[in-house]
Amino acid sequence: MRFLSGLFAVALTGAAFASALWSGAPLEAAEPDRRPNFVVIFCDDLGYGDLGCFGHPTIATPELDRMASEGTKLTQFYAAASVCSPSRAGLLTGRLPQRSGMWGNRRVLFPDSVGGLPAEEWTIAEKLKEVGYATGCVGKWHLGHLPEYLPAEHGFDSYFGIPYSNDMDRVGGSGKHVVREPYFEAFNVPLLESRGSAVATVVEQPTDQRSITRRYTEKGIEFIREHRDEPFFLYLAHSMPHVPLFRSKPFEGRSRAGIYGDVIEEIDWSVGQILGELRDQGLDQKTMVVFTSDNGPWLIYDEQGGSAGLLRDGKGSTWEGGMREPTLVWWPGTIPSGVASPALSSTLDLLPTFCSLASVAPPSDRPIDGYDLSETLIAGKPSPRETFFYYRGDQLMAVRHGDYKAHLITRDAYGPGSRRPERHDPPLLYHLGVDPGEKRDVAKEHPEVLAEIAEILAEHRAAMVIAESQFDRKK
Amino acid sequence: MRFLSGLFAVALTGAAFASALWSGAPLEAAEPDRRPNFVVIFCDDLGYGDLGCFGHPTIATPELDRMASEGTKLTQFYAAASVCSPSRAGLLTGRLPQRSGMWGNRRVLFPDSVGGLPAEEWTIAEKLKEVGYATGCVGKWHLGHLPEYLPAEHGFDSYFGIPYSNDMDRVGGSGKHVVREPYFEAFNVPLLESRGSAVATVVEQPTDQRSITRRYTEKGIEFIREHRDEPFFLYLAHSMPHVPLFRSKPFEGRSRAGIYGDVIEEIDWSVGQILGELRDQGLDQKTMVVFTSDNGPWLIYDEQGGSAGLLRDGKGSTWEGGMREPTLVWWPGTIPSGVASPALSSTLDLLPTFCSLASVAPPSDRPIDGYDLSETLIAGKPSPRETFFYYRGDQLMAVRHGDYKAHLITRDAYGPGSRRPERHDPPLLYHLGVDPGEKRDVAKEHPEVLAEIAEILAEHRAAMVIAESQFDRKK
Repeated sequence: MRFLSGLFAVALTGAAFASALWSGAPLEAAEPDRRPNFVVIFCDDLGYGDLGCFGHPTIATPELDRMASEGTKLTQFYAAASVCSPSRAGLLTGRLPQRSGMWGNRRVLFPDSVGGLPAEEWTIAEKLKEVGYATGCVGKWHLGHLPEYLPAEHGFDSYFGIPYSNDMDRVGGSGKHVVREPYFEAFNVPLLESRGSAVATVVEQPTDQRSITRRYTEKGIEFIREHRDEPFFLYLAHSMPHVPLFRSKPFEGRSRAGIYGDVIEEIDWSVGQILGELRDQGLDQKTMVVFTSDNGPWLIYDEQGGSAGLLRDGKGSTWEGGMREPTLVWWPGTIPSGVASPALSSTLDLLPTFCSLASVAPPSDRPIDGYDLSETLIAGKPSPRETFFYYRGDQLMAVRHGDYKAHLITRDAYGPGSRRPERHDPPLLYHLGVDPGEKRDVAKEHPEVLAEIAEILAEHRAAMVIAESQFDRKK
Repeated sequence: MRFLSGLFAVALTGAAFASALWSGAPLEAAEPDRRPNFVVIFCDDLGYGDLGCFGHPTIATPELDRMASEGTKLTQFYAAASVCSPSRAGLLTGRLPQRSGMWGNRRVLFPDSVGGLPAEEWTIAEKLKEVGYATGCVGKWHLGHLPEYLPAEHGFDSYFGIPYSNDMDRVGGSGKHVVREPYFEAFNVPLLESRGSAVATVVEQPTDQRSITRRYTEKGIEFIREHRDEPFFLYLAHSMPHVPLFRSKPFEGRSRAGIYGDVIEEIDWSVGQILGELRDQGLDQKTMVVFTSDNGPWLIYDEQGGSAGLLRDGKGSTWEGGMREPTLVWWPGTIPSGVASPALSSTLDLLPTFCSLASVAPPSDRPIDGYDLSETLIAGKPSPRETFFYYRGDQLMAVRHGDYKAHLITRDAYGPGSRRPERHDPPLLYHLGVDPGEKRDVAKEHPEVLAEIAEILAEHRAAMVIAESQFDRKK
C-alpha cells in the first residue's frame, strides 16, 4: 500500500490513535505504551517433523524446545501456500495469495520475473506503521526483486537480505550436485540492504551463504537494540534450510543428523539469540514471537530436505506435509507456557491478530482471509478459524472444515518425480484428528460432511476473485 | 530367581548392606536412606509418535508433556523386542529374551501356553528386594500365567492385573469387529490379585476393561502410599492402548483423535496422578520414574492402532517403528529437566541402572545385555551402549552400532498382511542419525561400516546362547 502508507506515516507519527477515528477497531481500551512488539521468525522449507519438540529424534533444538515450554505449540497451523512466494504474500497480507496475483504457472518468482506483490496490497508492516511501529525485514524476501516490489515499498523501514531463493542465479552449472555439494559462488544471489525509502543497494554478490544465518541473526539483534524504546515489528525470514544448505563454521559437522541437522541447529541457536536479546533488553514480556516456516520439506533432496514427521508428503503438495508447519508462539506472561494447542490457524491469521493486539484496524476495503487469534492464543478460546483452503497455483485443491479435509485434486510433491494431478469426484475425505497422516479415505462414511463442504466450497468460489498472475507476467 | 531370592530376603531384611560382602558393587558410598524409589510406567503397543512431546498433533498429553519438560526425553530408546512377552522379559531381566527362552514360533504366550519366565532368571524386583525394596506389580504381566510364573514368583510383593493380553480369551467370536467395536464381556480375561507369596486369586472375570486404566492407577497410588517410608519399586504395566480399546466414562469422546486418543489421554491422566501422588508424598525428589512402552504401534488396526511418527513400520517388525519407544525419565533435582537426549538406550538397561542406583550388584553369573545408564541420565555422559541387537523370535534380524543399522533380514509388521522375510547379503545399511525413517540404503557407500558390524555380529553369535522356547512348550 505504497501511497496510503506514506500519508498515514505522516498523520500518525506521535498520534497513533488518530486511526481510531476512521475504523471500528477496538482501540478504546488500548494504551500506546502497551502495544506489544512482534517478531516473526520464518524458515524456508522446514518440515513439520524437524524440531525436537515436534518429534525429531536426532536434530537437537534445545532453544526451540525451551521456546515451546515457555510458550504455546500450534500443532495445526498452516502456511498460506505450499511454495515460497505465495506463502510469503499470504503471511504479510492476511489474504490468500491468489487474490493478489501471487501465483502462476511458474510457481514462484524468479530472477527474470517482472512481477511482485502489488503496491495496492496492505502488509502487516504498513498496518503497524500506522500506529508508530518501527518495522524491519531481515532475510529472504521473494515477493518481487525489482525496486518497486522490495520491502521499502511494502512498509519496512529497513531491509537486509536476499531478494529470492538461495538456489537461484546459478552460475555453477545446473546439475543436482551443485545443490547437494554446494560452494557458495555457484549461486550469484545478491545481498541487499536498504534504510528508509532509499533504493536497496547490493552489498555483496554472490552472497556468502556460509554465514547467512549468523548475519541475519546479528541484523535482527541490531534492529531490536535500535528500537528497544518503541514498538517494533521484526520479520526475520531465514534463507535456510532451503537448499543449497550452508552453515557457519561452529555448526559444521555438529549434528547427528548431518548437514541438514547442522543447519537447523544453527537456526535453533539463532532463535536462542533473539529470545535472549529480548530478555536482556527487558522486552520478553512485551514481545510476541512467532516461529514457523513457509512450506513443508523439499523431499526430493532426501537427507538434505527435512521430514514432515507423521504427515503425508511435502513442499509443493496440498497433502498436510506440504502446508502444515511446526509453529511456536512465545510471549511470556501473556501467552500460556508449555501448552500444545490444536487450534486451527495459519500465517494468514497473523495480520488480523497483530492488528488486534496493536489496536489498529485491518484493511476493511477488501476480503481478508485471516482471523484474529488473539483470544485463542491468550485465553485459550476456540479458534475463530473453522475452514482452511489449500490452493496450488490458481487451483483450489482441498478444503479443511473442522477436523475433516476434502481433496478435490491431489498431486504429489513439487519436484521432477511429481505425478500428474488427479481429480476426485466425490472428493477424498480424511479426518485429520484421528488420521493426521491422511491414510484412510472416509468419504463413503460421511456424505453429510461432503455435503457441508460442498456448500462451503460453493460460497467460497462464488466470492473468490483470483487476480492475474504476477509470476507469469512478461515485460 | 525363586529359591535364591527367598534366602536373600531373610538375610537382608534390616541388613541390606550384607550384599556388599559378596560382590564388587560400589556400595561404599551409598546410604540406605538415599536409595531412590523406582516407578516404571509401561504401555502396551504405544507408538513412537503418539505423544504430544513426540510430535502428535491431536492427542492431548499435557501431563506427559510436563513430565518431559521436568525430565529427560530419550529419543533413541528401544524395547527389547517388537512384541509383548519377550519385551517384558527383557525389561525385567536386563537380558535378551532369547537367553531365557522367551521367544517362539508362537510369538507371545497365550492362555493355553504352559511356559513362562523361568525361575532361574533374576528380575529387577528380586534384585531390589535384596536391599530392602518393597516391590509391586500392577497391570499386564504376560510372562506366564501358571502359578509358578506369576509376579509373586519373580520378586513382587503384590500384584494386581491381567496375566496376558486384553484381546485373549475371546468368547465373543473371532471377527475383527469384536476387537474394533468391542464390549468387554467378549474377552474372558481374568483379573488377578496377590499379596506376598500367596497364590494369586481371580478377583474378576471377565475383567471390566472399561475401568482398567483407572483401577491400575488407583492400585499404583495405593502402593506408593503404603510404602512411602521405605524404598519401593512399582512396575505399572498398562493394558492399554493394546486393542480392544477401552477407557472410562470421563474419557469417552474426549479426544480429537478418536477412541485411540481417548485411551492415551486417560493414560496421560494416570501419569499425572502418579507423579502428583509422588509430589504430594514428598517423594518426587526421591523417585526415578520411567515412562515407555513394550513395542511399536499395531498398525493393522488403523486408527485404533497408534503411529510411529517419522519411523518406519510398527509392532512386530524390526524396522525402527517396531522397537523404538517414546520414553521419558523423570527424577526432579537429579535428572536434568527439559532435555532431549539421543543416548542409545533400552529397557534392557533398566536392571543395571536400577541396580547401580540402589547399590546392589547385578547378577554376575550370566550374561547381562543391559548397561548402567545412571551417569548418562544424571550427568549427561555418553551412553555406554554402543550396540543394539534386534531379534524377532530366535532370528537376529538387525544390529545397530553407533548411528548405523544393518538389516540382515527384513519383514513387515506383525499382522495378517505381513510379507515373508527377505534376507539381505550384504545387509541393508541405514544411518539413523540423518535418516531415522530408514529410507535410503547406504551399504554401498560404507563397506567399512559393514565390516565393523560383521565383526560385532560374529562376536555376538559366538557367545549368544538361545534357550529352548518357552512359548512353544507342550504339556
